[in-house]
Amino acid sequence: MTTPSRRDLANAIRFLAIDAVQAANSGHPGMPMGMADIAEVLWNDVLRHNPANPRWADRDRFILSNGHGSMLQYALLHLSGYDLSINDLKKFRQLDSKTPGHPENFMTCGIETTTGPLGQGFANAVGFALAEKLLAQRFNREGHAIVDHRTWVFMGDGCLMEGISHEAASLAGTWGLGKLVAFWDDNHISIDGNTDGWFTDDTPKRFEAYGWNVVRGVDGHDPVEIRTAIETARKSSDKPTLICCRTTIGFGSPNKAGKESSHGSPLGKDEVVATREALGWEHGAFEIPQALYDGWRARDLGAVEADWDARFAAYAAAFPSEAAEFQRRLAGELPEGFVDAALAFAIKTQQDGPTIASRKASQNCIEAFAPLLPELVGGSADLAHSNLTLWKGSKSVATDDANANYVYYGVREFGMTAIANGLTLHGGFIPYDATFLVFSDYARNAVRMAALMGVRALHVYTHDSIGLGEDGPTHQPIEHLASLRYIPDNDVWRPCDAVESAMAWKAAIQRADGPSCLIFSRQNLPHQARDEGQLLDIARGGYVLKESVGTPEVILIATGSEVGLAMQAAAKLGDGVRVVSMPCTDVFDRQDAVYRESVLPKSVRKRVAIEAGVSDFWRKYVGLDGAVIGIDTFGASAPIEALMPHFGFTVEHVLQAVSEL
Amino acid sequence: MTTPSRRDLANAIRFLAIDAVQAANSGHPGMPMGMADIAEVLWNDVLRHNPANPRWADRDRFILSNGHGSMLQYALLHLSGYDLSINDLKKFRQLDSKTPGHPENFMTCGIETTTGPLGQGFANAVGFALAEKLLAQRFNREGHAIVDHRTWVFMGDGCLMEGISHEAASLAGTWGLGKLVAFWDDNHISIDGNTDGWFTDDTPKRFEAYGWNVVRGVDGHDPVEIRTAIETARKSSDKPTLICCRTTIGFGSPNKAGKESSHGSPLGKDEVVATREALGWEHGAFEIPQALYDGWRARDLGAVEADWDARFAAYAAAFPSEAAEFQRRLAGELPEGFVDAALAFAIKTQQDGPTIASRKASQNCIEAFAPLLPELVGGSADLAHSNLTLWKGSKSVATDDANANYVYYGVREFGMTAIANGLTLHGGFIPYDATFLVFSDYARNAVRMAALMGVRALHVYTHDSIGLGEDGPTHQPIEHLASLRYIPDNDVWRPCDAVESAMAWKAAIQRADGPSCLIFSRQNLPHQARDEGQLLDIARGGYVLKESVGTPEVILIATGSEVGLAMQAAAKLGDGVRVVSMPCTDVFDRQDAVYRESVLPKSVRKRVAIEAGVSDFWRKYVGLDGAVIGIDTFGASAPIEALMPHFGFTVEHVLQAVSEL
Repeated sequence: MTTPSRRDLANAIRFLAIDAVQAANSGHPGMPMGMADIAEVLWNDVLRHNPANPRWADRDRFILSNGHGSMLQYALLHLSGYDLSINDLKKFRQLDSKTPGHPENFMTCGIETTTGPLGQGFANAVGFALAEKLLAQRFNREGHAIVDHRTWVFMGDGCLMEGISHEAASLAGTWGLGKLVAFWDDNHISIDGNTDGWFTDDTPKRFEAYGWNVVRGVDGHDPVEIRTAIETARKSSDKPTLICCRTTIGFGSPNKAGKESSHGSPLGKDEVVATREALGWEHGAFEIPQALYDGWRARDLGAVEADWDARFAAYAAAFPSEAAEFQRRLAGELPEGFVDAALAFAIKTQQDGPTIASRKASQNCIEAFAPLLPELVGGSADLAHSNLTLWKGSKSVATDDANANYVYYGVREFGMTAIANGLTLHGGFIPYDATFLVFSDYARNAVRMAALMGVRALHVYTHDSIGLGEDGPTHQPIEHLASLRYIPDNDVWRPCDAVESAMAWKAAIQRADGPSCLIFSRQNLPHQARDEGQLLDIARGGYVLKESVGTPEVILIATGSEVGLAMQAAAKLGDGVRVVSMPCTDVFDRQDAVYRESVLPKSVRKRVAIEAGVSDFWRKYVGLDGAVIGIDTFGASAPIEALMPHFGFTVEHVLQAVSEL
Repeated sequence: MTTPSRRDLANAIRFLAIDAVQAANSGHPGMPMGMADIAEVLWNDVLRHNPANPRWADRDRFILSNGHGSMLQYALLHLSGYDLSINDLKKFRQLDSKTPGHPENFMTCGIETTTGPLGQGFANAVGFALAEKLLAQRFNREGHAIVDHRTWVFMGDGCLMEGISHEAASLAGTWGLGKLVAFWDDNHISIDGNTDGWFTDDTPKRFEAYGWNVVRGVDGHDPVEIRTAIETARKSSDKPTLICCRTTIGFGSPNKAGKESSHGSPLGKDEVVATREALGWEHGAFEIPQALYDGWRARDLGAVEADWDARFAAYAAAFPSEAAEFQRRLAGELPEGFVDAALAFAIKTQQDGPTIASRKASQNCIEAFAPLLPELVGGSADLAHSNLTLWKGSKSVATDDANANYVYYGVREFGMTAIANGLTLHGGFIPYDATFLVFSDYARNAVRMAALMGVRALHVYTHDSIGLGEDGPTHQPIEHLASLRYIPDNDVWRPCDAVESAMAWKAAIQRADGPSCLIFSRQNLPHQARDEGQLLDIARGGYVLKESVGTPEVILIATGSEVGLAMQAAAKLGDGVRVVSMPCTDVFDRQDAVYRESVLPKSVRKRVAIEAGVSDFWRKYVGLDGAVIGIDTFGASAPIEALMPHFGFTVEHVLQAVSEL
C-alpha cells in the first residue's frame, strides 16, 4: 500500500465499525460510516490529545453525543494508538469488554463521558467547555495559558430533536463558549426513516437564535470543506460553533447508504462484501495495514503534550501555589483539612442547635464549606432564593471573574444536570445543582447517568414533601425519594435537622466516586439532641437517635421532617421505644451486618416507618409485620398546618399505628 | 361606575389575584397582573366558549402553561360566569377548595389541563390543537364544520427555557397547526431576577426556525395591539402563531412592577394599598362592582354554543352515524362490543399459545384492537420498528387522511407524552405513546401528570430489562419498573406472555380514569398454560399461575420475562410450590383482602420474588423473611445469553434461594 489517502484513513474507521458490528451481530454501522470523514480530519489534523496519556489535563475533549455510533469512537481510539487493541475491538458488545454497546467512560480509556441517551452528550460537552473557561479564568496568567483546550462534540438529528439540546445550546450561547464546536451529522435519517416527516426545523437558524456561530452546508465527506469549517470555528472566540455537515448514513454501502436500514443493524454478510467492493477495501475483517496505522499515527502527539508539560513547568516555577492548586483540583483531591473542618462545623451546629428549615441549614453548609472548596460550582434552575444555593462568595459564571462559581441555569433542570455532569467529568470541579425535589423528574436521566458514570455530582433538592404547602400536588413529591434511592449507586440524603444536613453535605463532598442527592425541607425542622457517637453515626446513614430502656419493644424509623414527629410520638410511648433516624438508606445498607443489626435487631419486629412519601419503600425495613405511615396518593394545595394532619402525620396516628402492631 | 374601560376590566383580574394571594399569604401575583390586559382582550373579544357549559365540544381551549399564575385563570372563570364563586376565590390555596395553588383540571370546571410544571401546558396545547385537526379531518363534511375551534395558550419565559418547549414547538411547526396560538409573556423576569443573565435566545427567530408565524413586539398592555395581533394569528391557517407580548410583571405595583419580588409572594399589605392607589381601584378586597361583571358578561356566549348546537343538529340529520360516533368519542365511551371482542382475542391467544416477544404480542393487540377503536392514536419517539407500535391501518397525522392515527414524534419522549396528555384531555382520543422503558426517564414528569390528572393515556415501554442485551447499561432499565409503580394512580403492567399482553392492553383501554404503562420485552417469552378462570384473573393484577398440591410450602412471585424462569424452577421444586404471576401490582393491591389472601396467604412466609429490576420493591410481598432475585446494580453490554446468568437469572439460583429460606 502506498501512502494512504484521507479516504483510506477514513475507510479504516468504516470497516472496523462494519466488521465489529457484523461480528457482534448487533450495533450501529451507519453513523460511523457517515461521520468517518469528519472524524478523520478532526482527529488527524486538529485534535490536541495524547494517546499515551488519556488523562493529560489540557487535552482537547472529544464527545460522541450520538453514542450509538460507539464503533466510530473505538476505531478512532484504536487507530490513534490508545490502549484499545484490535482484540478489544473484536469483543465489541461482549461481557466485560472495553468496547460496550455505547461508550462508557468507566470502561474505556479515552472516553470522556458515557453517551447513548440522546442529547446528553451535547449537554455534557457544554459543561466541559464551561469547565475549561472557568479553569482558564482561575489559573491562567499573562503569558501562561496552561488551560487552553477545545471541546468537540458530534451530534445527530436525534440529539437535536431532544429538548435538552435546546437547554444546553441556549446556555452555551449565553455564556459565549467560543471553544465549543459541535458537528451536526445532518443525514436526514433517524430510526423511523427520512426525517422530513418529523424534523423540519431550520437548525442553523435555530442555533443562530441562541447566539451561536453557524457554518452551514459543509459536505461531510469532503475533507477540505471539513477542514475549512473547523478553521472557521477556531476563529470564533466568543461564540460556540455549530458545523452543519451534510452526510450520508451508511456511506459506501451500495444498498443501504442513505437509508435507515444501515442505522441499527449489521449490514449483513453480502452487503459487507458489496461495501468492501464499492469502497475498494481489500483487507479482511479487523485487518488494518501498517501503512494505515502509520497514517493515523503520523503526528507526534507526545510532543504536543511535552510542549504543555514544559509550559506547565514554567508556570509552576512562576506560580507554585497556583500550580499545586491546579493539580490538586484536577486530581479531585479535597483540600487538606477540609474533612476536619466540615466535621467541626457539624459539631458546632450540634452545639448551637438551630431549629431552621433544612434548606436553610444547607445554605449554612455552603456558606461554611465553599470558602474552603474553590472547586465547588453551584447553581439552580431559577430557584436560587428558594433552594438557597447562593452564598456570599457566589459569582456568576457569566462573568470573567477568576472566582466565578455560580451558574444561573434558568428553568432548565435536565440541561443543568447534564452540564453539571460535564463539569465534574472534565475535572477540577465539584458541582451542585438545585431545583425542587418534584422537578428532579425533569432531570431524571441525567441523575441516573451521574450514578452510572460514578461522578461526584451533588443535587440539592428542596421542598421535599407535602410540607411545602400551598403549591399543591404538581409541586409535592410523593414517589421521588424512593425513586431516587432506587437508582443504583445514587446516595439520597434526607436530613432531619441542621446537624444531619451538615453531615450529609460532608458525606456528599467526600464521596469521590458517585453522586448524592441532598433533600431539604421548606419548613423549619426541630434540632435533635445527640452525643458525639450519634453525631458520627449519621455518616453511617442510619443510627439510633433515641435509645429505649432495655431491648426495644417498638422501633420507629423516620427521615427528615418526620424524625421530629417520631421523637414526639416516642416521648408519649415511653421507654420501650427506640427511634432510628435514617437520613440515607443507601449508606445504611452498605454498613456491615453487625452495625445494621445493632440498629435494627432482627428480633424486634414491631416497627413503624414514617416518611411523607410512598409507604411501600419502607417494607424493606418493617417487613410484612410492621406499619408504615406514608403517602400513597397525590398531595393537595393547602397550608402545611392543614396538610400534615390531613395526610396522617400526627402523633396520634403514630400512636395508633404502634398500638395496632 | 360608568361603563368600564378595558383597563378597568383587566384590573378586576389584577385585584382578584392580588387580594386572593394576599388572603392566602401565598401565591404569585406578578404574572396575573402582567397578563391581565392580554387575557381581557382574548376572553372578552375572541374566545369562543360557554361558561354555562364548560364541556361544550367545540369550545376554544384556553391553557395557562405558566400555571403559577393560576389566579389569572380563576379570575377569568369567575368574571366570565363559570361555576366559580367569589367565595371559591376567597379560599385560594386552601384544602379542598376549587382554587388550588396551580390550576387542576380535576378540581375546577373550565380548567382544561393541570399546569405548574413549566413547559408542559404548552406541549399539552399542541396536543389539543392536534386533536382538533384530527377530529376535523375525521368528522367535518362539506358545509358542516362541526369541529372548528382554536387552542390558545399563555406561556412565560420559564416555559420557553424548558427543553419541552423545543420538542413541542418543533412538532407544531411540522404539523402546521394553524389554530394554535401561543402568547409569550415576555417580561424579562424569572424567579432569579432579570433574565438577561440566563435567557438570551432570540425567541421570535427560534420559532420562525420551527416554521411558526411570529408576531413580534406587541405591547402586552395595549388592547388595540393585542387585538390586532390576535387577528393576524387568526389569518394564519397553516402555521401556528407565537404572539410576543412585551409585558411588565406585577403591572401597577409602584414598587414591585418589573421586579422578581412580585413573582412568587404576596405584594404585602402596604404595597396592595399603593397598587390600589396607582391603578385607581377603589373597591375592597374581593369586591367587583356589578358594572364590571356586566362588562365581563356582555357577550351572549350561550348564543355562540346555540349556533353550534343548531349546526350540529343539521350535521346529525345529514350524517347520523358520524354524529353518533362523534358523540361517543367525545364522551370517552368505548364502542359497543369492544370489551367482548378484546376478551375473545385474549382467549384466542390462549388457545394459539404463541411464544413471541411481548412487544410483538403488543403489536398483535394493536392490530386486533385498533380497527375497533378509531380513537386510538399511536406513536413512538422514533422507535416504531423497535417498539412495534405501527399496525397495518397506521396513517401519519402529518397527512390529511380522515383516518390519520399515528404520530411520528421523532426523538422527543417528554414532548410526546405531554402532547398525548393533550390529545386525551381534549377528548375524542385514546393515545398510546412509546419508547424504550429506560427513556421513560425523559418523559417522567408528563407520565406523572397523566396520573395526577387521571387521564386515559397508554405508555408502551419496550426493551424492559437487561434482556435487551448489547445496548448496555445506558439502555437497560433497573429502577424503572418500581419507580413507575410508585407514581400514584399509575398502573404498570408487565405481562409474561402474549395472553397477559392482551389482557393488559384490554385493561389499559378500559381504564377511563387513569393512565397505564404497558411494559414489554425485546426477547421471546414462552406461552403459559391457563384455564379460563386464570385467564380472567389476569385482570386482577396477580393470580396463581401454577397451583401447589395442598397448602403451598413456597410461593414464587414473578413478572414478565421472569415468570417463565419461575415456572421452570417450580417444575424442579415439585408439588409444594405455587407460582404467582403478578403482571400489575397496582391492580393487585386494589383487590379485596379476600382475593389477595387467596393468592398470597399470610401464613406462607417462604416467598421468593423474581424480577429483573430493583429487588427492594418486592419486600412489600416477601417481607423480611423472603428472598428476592433482582438487580441492584446497573446492567452491562452483552448478549442476553451471557447477561441473564451473569445477573443470577437461572433456575439454579432460584433453587438456591428457595433452599436458603
